[in-house]
Amino acid sequence: MNTIHTNPERLERFLTEIAAFGATANGGVTRLALSDEDRDARDRLREWFEEAGCETRIDRMGNMFFIRPGRNRALAPVMTGSHCDSQPQGGRFDGILGIIGGLEAVCALNDAGVTLERDLIVVNWTNEEGSRFTPGTTGSGVFAGKLDREAMYGLTDRDGLTFGAELERIGYKGGDDFDPRPLHANFEYHIEQGPVLERRGRTIGVPKGIVCLRWYDVEIQGVPNHAGPTPMDERQDAIYAFSRMAGRVFDIGLASDGVVATVGEVHPSPNSRNVIAGHVHFTIDIRGWDEAETDRVCEEIEAAIRANAEATGCTVEIRQTWAVERAPFHPELVSLIHQVAGELDLPALDMVSGASHDTVYINQFAPSAMIFVPSIGGRSHAEVEETSWADCAAGADVLLNCILKTANDPESVTYAAPE
Amino acid sequence: MNTIHTNPERLERFLTEIAAFGATANGGVTRLALSDEDRDARDRLREWFEEAGCETRIDRMGNMFFIRPGRNRALAPVMTGSHCDSQPQGGRFDGILGIIGGLEAVCALNDAGVTLERDLIVVNWTNEEGSRFTPGTTGSGVFAGKLDREAMYGLTDRDGLTFGAELERIGYKGGDDFDPRPLHANFEYHIEQGPVLERRGRTIGVPKGIVCLRWYDVEIQGVPNHAGPTPMDERQDAIYAFSRMAGRVFDIGLASDGVVATVGEVHPSPNSRNVIAGHVHFTIDIRGWDEAETDRVCEEIEAAIRANAEATGCTVEIRQTWAVERAPFHPELVSLIHQVAGELDLPALDMVSGASHDTVYINQFAPSAMIFVPSIGGRSHAEVEETSWADCAAGADVLLNCILKTANDPESVTYAAPE
Repeated sequence: MNTIHTNPERLERFLTEIAAFGATANGGVTRLALSDEDRDARDRLREWFEEAGCETRIDRMGNMFFIRPGRNRALAPVMTGSHCDSQPQGGRFDGILGIIGGLEAVCALNDAGVTLERDLIVVNWTNEEGSRFTPGTTGSGVFAGKLDREAMYGLTDRDGLTFGAELERIGYKGGDDFDPRPLHANFEYHIEQGPVLERRGRTIGVPKGIVCLRWYDVEIQGVPNHAGPTPMDERQDAIYAFSRMAGRVFDIGLASDGVVATVGEVHPSPNSRNVIAGHVHFTIDIRGWDEAETDRVCEEIEAAIRANAEATGCTVEIRQTWAVERAPFHPELVSLIHQVAGELDLPALDMVSGASHDTVYINQFAPSAMIFVPSIGGRSHAEVEETSWADCAAGADVLLNCILKTANDPESVTYAAPE
Repeated sequence: MNTIHTNPERLERFLTEIAAFGATANGGVTRLALSDEDRDARDRLREWFEEAGCETRIDRMGNMFFIRPGRNRALAPVMTGSHCDSQPQGGRFDGILGIIGGLEAVCALNDAGVTLERDLIVVNWTNEEGSRFTPGTTGSGVFAGKLDREAMYGLTDRDGLTFGAELERIGYKGGDDFDPRPLHANFEYHIEQGPVLERRGRTIGVPKGIVCLRWYDVEIQGVPNHAGPTPMDERQDAIYAFSRMAGRVFDIGLASDGVVATVGEVHPSPNSRNVIAGHVHFTIDIRGWDEAETDRVCEEIEAAIRANAEATGCTVEIRQTWAVERAPFHPELVSLIHQVAGELDLPALDMVSGASHDTVYINQFAPSAMIFVPSIGGRSHAEVEETSWADCAAGADVLLNCILKTANDPESVTYAAPE
């Protein structure tokens, strides 16, 4: 067995200290992209990485690249990392664990006196969450050439402040772009954000990719009327129509082969206690690994919505507002993560990622995979989000050993693009 | 046949002219209680009634009493009237038709040279709608001794303005109370606000009373989570739980014997597209003429809510926030309205009022009944609210002849309180 280990106490210390930037009273963090708290966390990350011997590069999107030089700097580097921004009143593991895991890997390599063949780059992608400036995964999206930098500079928050001006204000608008392509391999280490690993008693999640996604906006038009004098059989009640539709969305998702379907927003009008609602706007989020099954679920849901509009005397308008194809990760890297977890005696599980991540973009031009660790109670995007320190260290060990193996690959090894 | 008629052209002219106070672009009115528009409409009503020979009395709640003196002023008077305030972007018939109907009755009596035995009082009750200052039926409630005047003075609107100060500002805070009790009979003439008369092809609705009412606030607690990584069978989705409950509320109402059940408000949290809702607050409004059947429906709905909370892994808290007993109108006055409609060859229908009215309060101490005319499409509390001029005149004719009969009752006639 040829594995090395991270230092669990140091990892916990890093994670505890960085959680102070934007800490909330209930144990979470509010560290919105390009806020003062984001800046302070970035400053601290830079200090730590530079103390650990890394070079820092910052590109024009504020993406931070911490580079641990390899023996042969002409070789394609290995990249890892995630994001340090958070949701409002979010958790203290989401995103940041992937950067701190990379930092701890650097420190553990230093402790072991290991010089890798290839450069190791740990990255902090700007504005993954998109909760202050929408859309999210902004830094990785521009890096991948899929989002337009000038357009992203123009994004505004609720106070009308722009992404570009805020990036400049916090001092993280780099002067030119840094482009380490081609990349030999890219790993993102992240908490699961769901309950699967915990329920199945596994420590390491090995997603084969990120599910595909379909978003819908639905408008139900009924007839608003007085709740008293209108007999039940003469109503065109948009909330009743909604209730039947939302029930079907859930039940169709439940009966499907691994597709999830969620009604997350409901906006009735007039939303008044003694008035029959005349209109309901609602949203549907549908995701699945199997694109054909996902599209079948979408069709079944669309048909159920139309049938229930008809049955309740309402009319309905269904718009698909977003569709993203699934992102399959690189099979050889997925296998490597399984192999490393086995060498470390960590129980691992094949799964998919239901959430999107920066790796969606990086996966489009570089061999990529992700490493998950359990979220306690499956909770995330909330202050209660938690992962045990032992699981944090286990995931960091997997990351470290994946880096060790890939960053020492000889020049002749390349990962061909997956079919 | 011993009937007289109102003047349809004059009635239409009155209704058209008064609709200018607070007129909206789409043909409705916004004439909120104690606004400038309310004041201007009150001023015009006073001019019209005084031109028609009435005395005006204004009490400390701003209720306006227009008195057409009878031959024997010691006899208990006959009262009619309604309210001239409206909902925001409400209709131009709701409320005001009952006052204008009374005004037209006064004018028609004048034209016919009729002096009644008893005083006829046409009243404009302050703040029936309650949409600016909650609760509504404020003027009639204080008049009936059921609401506290000082407490009502303290009600505030969204801008923090008080009922008392606004009443004073518009010049309608009378110096002392006016109390014409006992009343011989009280009629309120109103649009139906529902579709029943139109669907049944009847011109005059004769409600036997106002239905009883039960209001509920319901809180569903589930577990908020990410819409992607959480499998369908591991969710405690508060919107899904709501959808099942709201469906049952409607279906139980539909299957009942004449009870209506409405979910009017839904407030999910966090109400975000890609988050499973952790909480839903919703309201239920249940009304029926048969109190026992209404309470049975309430019990069935409560049980269904608890069962669906259980089935969806959520918890639920159900609070009954308001319960009002039904208000049966005076049977002799109800019969009289039927008799008068028959004499006028107007097709009438026994029904109930699903909406509340000022007469709920007056009915508690004086023999009362209501006269309904059709709402086109059953629509009310909306700018599209409409009643044909012919139906407006038909209802005014019924009111006029009911007044004629009761206000000429000899001293010896009294309407005993109903059982």
